[in-house]
Amino acid sequence: MRGVLIVMGSDSDLKTMKGAADALAELGVPHQVRIASAHRTPEKVAGLVAAAEADGYGAIIAGAGGAAHLPGVIAAGTSLPVIGVPIASGALHGMDALHAIVQMPKGIPVATVAIDGAYNAGLLAAQIIGVDDAGLRARLADYRRALAEQVEAKDRRLQEGGIGAYLAQPKA
Amino acid sequence: MRGVLIVMGSDSDLKTMKGAADALAELGVPHQVRIASAHRTPEKVAGLVAAAEADGYGAIIAGAGGAAHLPGVIAAGTSLPVIGVPIASGALHGMDALHAIVQMPKGIPVATVAIDGAYNAGLLAAQIIGVDDAGLRARLADYRRALAEQVEAKDRRLQEGGIGAYLAQPKA
Amino acid sequence: MRGVLIVMGSDSDLKTMKGAADALAELGVPHQVRIASAHRTPEKVAGLVAAAEADGYGAIIAGAGGAAHLPGVIAAGTSLPVIGVPIASGALHGMDALHAIVQMPKGIPVATVAIDGAYNAGLLAAQIIGVDDAGLRARLADYRRALAEQVEAKDRRLQEGGIGAYLAQPKA
Amino acid sequence: MRGVLIVMGSDSDLKTMKGAADALAELGVPHQVRIASAHRTPEKVAGLVAAAEADGYGAIIAGAGGAAHLPGVIAAGTSLPVIGVPIASGALHGMDALHAIVQMPKGIPVATVAIDGAYNAGLLAAQIIGVDDAGLRARLADYRRALAEQVEAKDRRLQEGGIGAYLAQPKA
Amino acid sequence: MRGVLIVMGSDSDLKTMKGAADALAELGVPHQVRIASAHRTPEKVAGLVAAAEADGYGAIIAGAGGAAHLPGVIAAGTSLPVIGVPIASGALHGMDALHAIVQMPKGIPVATVAIDGAYNAGLLAAQIIGVDDAGLRARLADYRRALAEQVEAKDRRLQEGGIGAYLAQPKA
Amino acid sequence: MRGVLIVMGSDSDLKTMKGAADALAELGVPHQVRIASAHRTPEKVAGLVAAAEADGYGAIIAGAGGAAHLPGVIAAGTSLPVIGVPIASGALHGMDALHAIVQMPKGIPVATVAIDGAYNAGLLAAQIIGVDDAGLRARLADYRRALAEQVEAKDRRLQEGGIGAYLAQPKA
Amino acid sequence: MRGVLIVMGSDSDLKTMKGAADALAELGVPHQVRIASAHRTPEKVAGLVAAAEADGYGAIIAGAGGAAHLPGVIAAGTSLPVIGVPIASGALHGMDALHAIVQMPKGIPVATVAIDGAYNAGLLAAQIIGVDDAGLRARLADYRRALAEQVEAKDRRLQEGGIGAYLAQPKA
Amino acid sequence: MRGVLIVMGSDSDLKTMKGAADALAELGVPHQVRIASAHRTPEKVAGLVAAAEADGYGAIIAGAGGAAHLPGVIAAGTSLPVIGVPIASGALHGMDALHAIVQMPKGIPVATVAIDGAYNAGLLAAQIIGVDDAGLRARLADYRRALAEQVEAKDRRLQEGGIGAYLAQPKA
Repeated sequence: MRGVLIVMGSDSDLKTMKGAADALAELGVPHQVRIASAHRTPEKVAGLVAAAEADGYGAIIAGAGGAAHLPGVIAAGTSLPVIGVPIASGALHGMDALHAIVQMPKGIPVATVAIDGAYNAGLLAAQIIGVDDAGLRARLADYRRALAEQVEAKDRRLQEGGIGAYLAQPKA
Repeated sequence: MRGVLIVMGSDSDLKTMKGAADALAELGVPHQVRIASAHRTPEKVAGLVAAAEADGYGAIIAGAGGAAHLPGVIAAGTSLPVIGVPIASGALHGMDALHAIVQMPKGIPVATVAIDGAYNAGLLAAQIIGVDDAGLRARLADYRRALAEQVEAKDRRLQEGGIGAYLAQPKA
Repeated sequence: MRGVLIVMGSDSDLKTMKGAADALAELGVPHQVRIASAHRTPEKVAGLVAAAEADGYGAIIAGAGGAAHLPGVIAAGTSLPVIGVPIASGALHGMDALHAIVQMPKGIPVATVAIDGAYNAGLLAAQIIGVDDAGLRARLADYRRALAEQVEAKDRRLQEGGIGAYLAQPKA
Repeated sequence: MRGVLIVMGSDSDLKTMKGAADALAELGVPHQVRIASAHRTPEKVAGLVAAAEADGYGAIIAGAGGAAHLPGVIAAGTSLPVIGVPIASGALHGMDALHAIVQMPKGIPVATVAIDGAYNAGLLAAQIIGVDDAGLRARLADYRRALAEQVEAKDRRLQEGGIGAYLAQPKA
Repeated sequence: MRGVLIVMGSDSDLKTMKGAADALAELGVPHQVRIASAHRTPEKVAGLVAAAEADGYGAIIAGAGGAAHLPGVIAAGTSLPVIGVPIASGALHGMDALHAIVQMPKGIPVATVAIDGAYNAGLLAAQIIGVDDAGLRARLADYRRALAEQVEAKDRRLQEGGIGAYLAQPKA
Repeated sequence: MRGVLIVMGSDSDLKTMKGAADALAELGVPHQVRIASAHRTPEKVAGLVAAAEADGYGAIIAGAGGAAHLPGVIAAGTSLPVIGVPIASGALHGMDALHAIVQMPKGIPVATVAIDGAYNAGLLAAQIIGVDDAGLRARLADYRRALAEQVEAKDRRLQEGGIGAYLAQPKA
Repeated sequence: MRGVLIVMGSDSDLKTMKGAADALAELGVPHQVRIASAHRTPEKVAGLVAAAEADGYGAIIAGAGGAAHLPGVIAAGTSLPVIGVPIASGALHGMDALHAIVQMPKGIPVATVAIDGAYNAGLLAAQIIGVDDAGLRARLADYRRALAEQVEAKDRRLQEGGIGAYLAQPKA
Repeated sequence: MRGVLIVMGSDSDLKTMKGAADALAELGVPHQVRIASAHRTPEKVAGLVAAAEADGYGAIIAGAGGAAHLPGVIAAGTSLPVIGVPIASGALHGMDALHAIVQMPKGIPVATVAIDGAYNAGLLAAQIIGVDDAGLRARLADYRRALAEQVEAKDRRLQEGGIGAYLAQPKA
């Protein structure tokens, strides 16, 4: 199975980007997490990207805040699908990063997820890797069933106890 | 090769969404374009999505404007990667559609591209299909080389003739 | 009297959406609160909505944050009036949910209230149920008189004691 | 059957607000259209609102642009459900009107529809009037079936002729 | 000397609006602070405004948050200058109140100050009252000189001690 | 009677700012219109402002677009009330000018009107000049009555002819 | 004298970016205009930037729209000052480009000018080159005097002829 | 070597603006920090700016929040390059200051950095001073190498210990 390369420009993004690694680990998709900055170490980024296909990666996830160039710079260097995670930081709360990631010009797409949506980036990468992997697709389907069952369980608990009891219970 | 399903809720989006079909056609990726609305024909959408995997699709592209629910509603029904195209329409110029598509909750990602970025949605779908298709990846690389060559040619023309002559020439 | 169905996609919205139930309880309007997700349990949502009219509901309130699709998805399935509550969550503070709820396409309206305005959603549902219920309309008029009297009482206290004393008093 | 009162502050809004009257006419709901301004003729507005219930109205639709106060001012004077239509005008393209209509304080809700969404305001008013009117509810269901059939017809035409032929055909 | 009427719709705005009273008190301008809501007690507001000119007021200050209608509703009822203070509250942080106050239609202006800028509203009211009052204008000039002297004193302290010492000193 | 000084930084603003002069002319308030730029001719601005009080002005209106500094720079130099008109120009459609005018710091207020609201700036200036001028206040009241009568006349015409006839008539 | 390198990613930006070249030409500063894309020809950009200092450039101007990465990517490769011009294009009118250019992370500044402000970018570059060039500084001062004289001339014409005559004259 | 003048309008900005002084101190560029307000002490600002060139400054950094006029007012008075720092304060979180600083009119540029980006303002000033100073350019290159080495060191630590260990370590 092809793996997923996760890149971020600063270790301050690691707490958020961990979500992508978590999703991939839960789904059994190999992945590696690297710190490399489009602005501070552009050559390192270029090297990682140039080698990504040969290194067996099938998708790349990049997270960045502010004038978030990392996903687009990576997408400029590969034909692998690149997933961008806008990270909320600073005064504009990720609106700047969303604009800087999603509004890519014709020819160089970045698959953008929600602000701080690193977990979903991991799921999306797994969906991409899973296009030709029936086993992974089955695990993704299991994940969705589990999501649905959690909703059902919460609704049952609410119907049994009412709003007051529900809100009074300790958080799981 | 797996194909790509392109869905939009209204024929008023067709002029924009044609870009996705164009990109896939240029890259030799089979695709089908359907009109089905998350709000007006939710059961039709559900049917298309439920059958998508068995019908041989490897990715789904959905475009919508305003309170753009179609990509998310499709993503709720499949483990295939879903690409969302926010369409600029009405008073908010696609900002509403961008928010309604990209800010998906944990568990159900939508790979969002730029507002009106249908052509890039087609490229992204091809990148996804191409993860396990060396021939398609080669065509994607050719496309990028052609992009770069166009930039080079334009720069040469500018260096030779200067700004005035460049702007005076008829548009290609 | 017809009742009101209150739906939310996640129990994290319950603390906010409780306001709708509170308003309806104060006004003596029967209501039920359910957790059902447009993205995680779309079939459950469809089932609740399909049965709503026969189950005696006269209006449906749905709350959601982010790419808030639940109110629109519900509105797609019924001719009952649907009230949407945008919930502030994440980096965009409910602006995304507002756009994703209010900007519905022609044919499928959602009656949108303020961000986090669940109490007002309950009042609006009661106004709708009360169109043909003189008793409920009278209770709504009583509620408004009480609102006005609270303002009057506060103004009297301010005129008697001045700003300093008013701000020094413990909060009611 | 109760009717619907449609109010706008300026005749410049009439072209947009006509959509509300059109929807109600198509569904056979009695309605009246008035020009009355919250800022220029506040007493006229107060008079219309005070008499609305006795005049047989079951809902009020109000449209306004800019610092759009008319829907909220009307809602302050009645327990009937009030529907607000933000109208795009001036430099902020209706974002100002949306904020000024939807963000009502606790106690006085306004059921807000999309910017320039007057037709949907008419539909929503009909849904409200129809809560206790089986015939109107049936006409609303017919309307939805017609919407769905239009989508189906467009999709069939697209499948038969392809994108090129579809876009080349004259607009209906 | 004419006085200034300060109105707010809720006592939750009092802490902010106190700034207007403070400015007027410092400048020796008579003023009164009232709680009256455009939505909850519209008739009370109308009464205060109708009497304002005869009561000796020369300007009215109104503060409100969210769908902030109070300043505009007051301006609709008088030819006295009306100053609006947008109050930051809720998810949109006063952007909604700013839009709802400043974007008034032709014919009914509201003199809008900064979000939460109640103190400046008091100053502006004093400037208005002072147009024909040389003594008040002199006190306003004194106030400005004091402002300038504070800046000068801070700069001197910074030049003498440097940044480190300045930031280490306890706040005045 | 004190007059009103109208200042703008560029003759490209004159078409918009003419509205302020029109309002003042209709109300019989003396006024003068000057072109002087806070950025290109700061000393000229300072000179006009320093002399304004002695020159018999009772209020100053300043219009500007983009990083609109002119109203604030003028307010820094006088205790006369200063009215700011944000002018829509360029890519941000006046949102930038609104922020640059209304968000003034403590101590230096600018009375901000709507984007492109020059006519209302003239009315507001007349209200300010009229605080101590019963004749001008009477003319302002007449103006409001005329506004109300226009609304009434339009409503009568609409009631008599219906929407279709109203919209078909040539614009006045 | 050091020169200025002007770079843009697409010839569609040339019409806007010509303003930078115009300013530099008027001030006698040598400059060169190149088309090179951060996304389509990243290696070409890297080559231009790596050689810029040795090629005698003292500043670099880069213009881009949408997810505007070019200025930041250039700034990552040089210690020369880099000026970014956000270009208005597409649905977000340059707000996206502004965010993507100005919000650079610590360590890699970009000197950002107004949306579509290419002429000012040229002036700023000349100011930078002129820090150690008295002749260029003198020409910049002359430019400012000419700006001021234009304002004065316009004001004189307005004072002589009035608003009506001014607006009736043909545009210069 | 020419120095850098750092100006802010209020000592409440000092904590943020200290970053500019820090950057300049680290790079050995002489600088002075002054408090002077465009609104409260305009003459003091004018005096500082008029003397800046003769005082040996080669660039000016100005920070301001809200209706941030200081950078533009300074730029109006000098041909030296002026760098503006928008400061996040109040309800709009620096979006207002960004608009008020970056959107300068033709003829008077301000080199704008990120919201709260004072450190980068210092770096940019050093880059400007360094255009003709090989030693300073070398120190700037050293700074960038150190930035890159920090990224490399963090990535090595992450590769050695994994995400869990990395996040568990105490912050440096």
